[in-house]
Amino acid sequence: MADPSFSLTVPEGDDIARKVCDTCGFVAYENPKIVVGSVVRHDGRILLCRRAIEPRRGFWTIPAGYLELNETPEDGARREAREEARATLAIERLLAVYSVPRISQVQLIYRASLAEPGFAAGPESLDVRLFAEDEIPYDELAFPSVHWALGHDREAEAGAPPIPFSNPDGETGSRMPSGERLGVDRM
Amino acid sequence: MADPSFSLTVPEGDDIARKVCDTCGFVAYENPKIVVGSVVRHDGRILLCRRAIEPRRGFWTIPAGYLELNETPEDGARREAREEARATLAIERLLAVYSVPRISQVQLIYRASLAEPGFAAGPESLDVRLFAEDEIPYDELAFPSVHWALGHDREAEAGAPPIPFSNPDGETGSRMPSGERLGVDRM
Repeated sequence: MADPSFSLTVPEGDDIARKVCDTCGFVAYENPKIVVGSVVRHDGRILLCRRAIEPRRGFWTIPAGYLELNETPEDGARREAREEARATLAIERLLAVYSVPRISQVQLIYRASLAEPGFAAGPESLDVRLFAEDEIPYDELAFPSVHWALGHDREAEAGAPPIPFSNPDGETGSRMPSGERLGVDRM
Repeated sequence: MADPSFSLTVPEGDDIARKVCDTCGFVAYENPKIVVGSVVRHDGRILLCRRAIEPRRGFWTIPAGYLELNETPEDGARREAREEARATLAIERLLAVYSVPRISQVQLIYRASLAEPGFAAGPESLDVRLFAEDEIPYDELAFPSVHWALGHDREAEAGAPPIPFSNPDGETGSRMPSGERLGVDRM
């Protein structure tokens, strides 16, 4: 069997260049991806997972990942928490809708709590822990949107109305709050 | 060049069957798609487009379509209104987040108004019109979520708080309000 090999070509009837396989002619339409995740609270603390995989291995994140086919966003958020944190969630409501156009992502982030008290590191996590708000390792968070989600969840906890937050003004997910720029290979 | 020909196979390291090309080995990961659209008001009336393309050719819809790569949802909603209704939108806020898992769609629907008064049918529309609320052709709407969005926009107009709506209870986008079931080929 030959290997797939793609060239950028505008297919007939289209107006945008797509990846077309030189071997078989398949047009690999690429679409933005939907990330679903949750800020999970339990006893006033927040659940974070230390990533076992790239990008940002070793950094802390909220349970989140790509929505699968035929899945509702809430089901996807619950599945990701099961996979990454062996946790069973009760989803409360939509907290935020973020957009990271550089990497073609739309993120739907929910507020949730643990429906059962247990949790453990799944195969994509090195560690899973509950952090009090003043213990959160802000210097070791994986992605800008993890910072945003934790800040927005804190505002929600303090009584902000249940309107979903979106990107902080002027932010497109290309830099960490420290100013560090993220490459195209980074979430 | 051979034709693409796909079989369902679980790739190494994965746990879900994906479409793998028999000719070149390319794994065609399929992901849910993001639809962005708007309920557009002008002078108390609502802008609808009569579809020139399948599915549901001849039926009325709000301007909406697939989000493109590297696009924010708001930019995508404005682009779709330009393409389908030659309209320039001012987006007000997120009205609804709908999920249609049968066809793996997440829909982000905005409230908007016309930033400029003009509009006209684009290539994917047979007609574009402004309808007073009591003139909306409810029997000729294209998709369940068009019904939902118009109903939710009416609630927003009547003073509902700016929390995005989601699917009506128990609805997954598989049937019209009339009870008509939609096939897998339908949006």
